[in-house]
Amino acid sequence: MDDAPEVAVLRLGHRPGRDDRMTTHVALTARALGATRVILPDDASDAVDTARSVTERFGGPFAVEQDDSWRARLREWDGIVVHLTMYGEPVQTVGTEVREAGRTAPVLVVIGAEKVPFDVYEAADWNVAVTNQPHSEVASLAVFLDRLYQGQELDCEWADAERRVVPRATGKRVVEAGENERHADGDG
Amino acid sequence: MDDAPEVAVLRLGHRPGRDDRMTTHVALTARALGATRVILPDDASDAVDTARSVTERFGGPFAVEQDDSWRARLREWDGIVVHLTMYGEPVQTVGTEVREAGRTAPVLVVIGAEKVPFDVYEAADWNVAVTNQPHSEVASLAVFLDRLYQGQELDCEWADAERRVVPRATGKRVVEAGENERHADGDG
Repeated sequence: MDDAPEVAVLRLGHRPGRDDRMTTHVALTARALGATRVILPDDASDAVDTARSVTERFGGPFAVEQDDSWRARLREWDGIVVHLTMYGEPVQTVGTEVREAGRTAPVLVVIGAEKVPFDVYEAADWNVAVTNQPHSEVASLAVFLDRLYQGQELDCEWADAERRVVPRATGKRVVEAGENERHADGDG
Repeated sequence: MDDAPEVAVLRLGHRPGRDDRMTTHVALTARALGATRVILPDDASDAVDTARSVTERFGGPFAVEQDDSWRARLREWDGIVVHLTMYGEPVQTVGTEVREAGRTAPVLVVIGAEKVPFDVYEAADWNVAVTNQPHSEVASLAVFLDRLYQGQELDCEWADAERRVVPRATGKRVVEAGENERHADGDG
């Protein structure tokens, strides 16, 4: 994506077991919607494995890192920090500023699970709300990225993909690298 | 929202336990991003309770229904049916058509969890993909609704809310109906 912000997503507050699937969805949403990197807690190995496996099969570039020292990450981040929270400023108000800032500096998007320590609110250059309603960190991340990239992320090309889905009005079509197309018209 | 599509979200294939939180996030995302109704399976009572409780506290209108007879719902739906799937046509391609159709007919958005039976693909007027990559049904729903409503949903007013979040650059501010504003600058 030309002239588009470079984004890494930092997941905070993962609770093993309870948050495994949400953290996996955070990582896969980050990848699908244009981020180049996700940083997950050390105890989120399910999500790490799934995100790496999807990247292997469906392409990259997308890096999956594990790191519990998120305070150091925030402090040392050489770019801008956006914390997504229902208490923040509306994305429709501050989105343009954030996008402008993201043209010249990498963006770290912080996504909390359970209660987020107050120093995250303070460390963020922007606390951004996708509505001030309680809903889903995955939904907030998705809308934020789609608006940050202004839809460009939807047309991105994937490198080194073993398989590729070919859009269809009905049914499923998957192309494997080096194989013919597969059609599946059964369930699935 | 003037001239905006009326949307109900139908959740399919919920697996109790495993899908409780994802189904809850589907319901809350539907509510926060402009749908007026969600239809959940009979065994998704955790998600039903949470979505009703959030609606009671943060306002509506938003209806939470339970119904396992989704085939009848699809067949009898008097409007258009959109199935969100990674195998479908790109939202950036068909989104405008769907939005036009939604101006005069209510939209049923179908969100699968596990594998979706093939008759759903056939019953849908559109199978729509938010990228043809594997990620999250919550992310797909969020991007689809934000595009369907063209951002209008972010400014919607909530009726009968007991509490309301006041956007802040840093920290949290919540107003309770009949109370003074509460400030919280600690963690949380």
